[in-house]
Amino acid sequence: MNKLYNPKREEWEKLLQRPTQALEDIEQTVNDIFSEVRSKGDSAVSKYTDLFDGIKLDSFKVTTEEIEAAFGKVSSELKNAIQLAKSNIEKFHEAQKTPKVEVTTTKGVECWQEKRPIQKVGLYIPGGSAPLFSTILMLATPANIAGCKEIVLCTPPDKNGEINPVILYTAALCGVDKVFKIGGIQAIAALTFGTETVPKMYKIFGPGNQFVTVAKQLATKFHVAIDMPAGPSELLVVADDTADAAFVASDLLSQAEHGPDSQVILISTSEQMIEAVEREVELQLEVLPRKEMAQRSIANSKLIYLENKELAMEIINEYGPEHFIVCTADNDFYIEKNYKCWLCIYWKLHTGKCRRLCFRY
Amino acid sequence: MNKLYNPKREEWEKLLQRPTQALEDIEQTVNDIFSEVRSKGDSAVSKYTDLFDGIKLDSFKVTTEEIEAAFGKVSSELKNAIQLAKSNIEKFHEAQKTPKVEVTTTKGVECWQEKRPIQKVGLYIPGGSAPLFSTILMLATPANIAGCKEIVLCTPPDKNGEINPVILYTAALCGVDKVFKIGGIQAIAALTFGTETVPKMYKIFGPGNQFVTVAKQLATKFHVAIDMPAGPSELLVVADDTADAAFVASDLLSQAEHGPDSQVILISTSEQMIEAVEREVELQLEVLPRKEMAQRSIANSKLIYLENKELAMEIINEYGPEHFIVCTADNDFYIEKNYKCWLCIYWKLHTGKCRRLCFRY
Repeated sequence: MNKLYNPKREEWEKLLQRPTQALEDIEQTVNDIFSEVRSKGDSAVSKYTDLFDGIKLDSFKVTTEEIEAAFGKVSSELKNAIQLAKSNIEKFHEAQKTPKVEVTTTKGVECWQEKRPIQKVGLYIPGGSAPLFSTILMLATPANIAGCKEIVLCTPPDKNGEINPVILYTAALCGVDKVFKIGGIQAIAALTFGTETVPKMYKIFGPGNQFVTVAKQLATKFHVAIDMPAGPSELLVVADDTADAAFVASDLLSQAEHGPDSQVILISTSEQMIEAVEREVELQLEVLPRKEMAQRSIANSKLIYLENKELAMEIINEYGPEHFIVCTADNDFYIEKNYKCWLCIYWKLHTGKCRRLCFRY
Repeated sequence: MNKLYNPKREEWEKLLQRPTQALEDIEQTVNDIFSEVRSKGDSAVSKYTDLFDGIKLDSFKVTTEEIEAAFGKVSSELKNAIQLAKSNIEKFHEAQKTPKVEVTTTKGVECWQEKRPIQKVGLYIPGGSAPLFSTILMLATPANIAGCKEIVLCTPPDKNGEINPVILYTAALCGVDKVFKIGGIQAIAALTFGTETVPKMYKIFGPGNQFVTVAKQLATKFHVAIDMPAGPSELLVVADDTADAAFVASDLLSQAEHGPDSQVILISTSEQMIEAVEREVELQLEVLPRKEMAQRSIANSKLIYLENKELAMEIINEYGPEHFIVCTADNDFYIEKNYKCWLCIYWKLHTGKCRRLCFRY
């Protein structure tokens, strides 16, 4: 990992650059696929599924039989874990419901605000190297609680034209109406324009690699809303000398293994912690099933020492991480001064060190 | 105005196309200006201010003297009206504050959500053909209530290098920290990258023409957040035979006069209302100070008859208007079935016909 000690302010911008492929290359590809899917529909989707996923498919829609078969292939233990996670996520999102806000600003002028379900939402679930069923739980659960009428899901097929049964089980459990075996740019294009098979959606949610991210940004030009440009995945951990280096290393690796273009950064006010985390990352990497993937993204990643928490916070705000974990003696400081995120979701674990995590919105 | 009776479903997409210039032309211009402002800072901003606004400026920052002078140039009557509007807007946004949401999902796992101010926000206020001081009120007031630390504003200078005093008065009243005489693409680029004069912002808010809209979308690729792609301005009014044609015509014209690329659409389940509104628009256009501007955007606009409210609602959801006014005997129907908007802001006027308005978010 790259270690940097007290980098100068003028070097921060360069230092914090995301490891994304040249934007222009990606954009050309995304534009081309969008216009082809727009004009040719399913046949273009089929062409790019063959090209990128290596499988010729006549039909993209997952059948009832496939979903039923998936239920038989997931272990009871995993099913129970998924149901428990769903119930926890439901508790959290149920608590978000807010009443209508009504104000009479002037006699005769009644104003109000209300939150309402978007009728048609498309979820994108990456599936290239890992079945992200947790993402289905986190996207489809609030969509159901909000009352969205039509929830469809796109996820790339494997080389045999199949979807991981855990994905299908979780989608069915969470009330997803339709699942399509479509990945990457062609999935976002299909949800944007609609095809013979895929319905046109009002808003697209979900993470993805840099191609998916650029595709989602392009979708907004065609009046489709998106949640946020959410990929490639990134994590910043701030840790002082009170943190547990093994936990910090695990957190960094858990994000690093998402994909080779993920980025993880450790900011620390302790030189010892930087050294300790570096050693722990090396140790834990050895026993990681997704070692190769994590190693490639660890190569993009940085351990940065800053001499005080004010400077540490400045560089964190300069970067504006997608995910942010705080493991310090003064967690409140890092939470209060986190200025780029307007809607923060935190949790605190009482097992082991106190940790907090925030998502950028 | 173009009148259409019961257009077929397969014609809707074409019919509802926005009157935007070819996207590719705009994008090239926006990309070029962004990379020049990024590498050359103020000197690039100066070049494009000369080119687009026709004025060579050595300094973009509005001085304290200019702001003080502006206070003397705004009539007491207008000042009182602006203060009243500010106080109404404050009442509305104060009511939006929500408490922290805390949930313990599992023993030992405390989760919470909180809304927090974004530290650095940039407001874009169009000024080409009309000083939109109302937009300052609507953007800076909630930013202040939220607690944003740094609020800066960009607005284009006139041919003499000046800003309308009402803009300066309103900005000062609303606690805007700095005002820059910069408009269009170069303003969004300056807020995105920062220059010697303009600070780099975390989020950019505000409407604009199609160039500003494309520029804001480009800003998101450089990790700057935006409120929404908000321009060119558009309005859809739905009216049945209980509506007042003069009010409907005024609403349509009020949006049409925003700019020549604005679009207004009337959806009606009454053929008589279509005819009556068309006559009223012609009558009212004659006495409109901004007649020429409104006329050009009225040429882009459509009066569409649909035979029942279900069909009317379907076409409204297909379009997803930025602003939506409802003047019918069954307003609740049109509000309840408005599916593309997740956060709706409505108001109801008790003078005259009941009207409701929603903003797409």
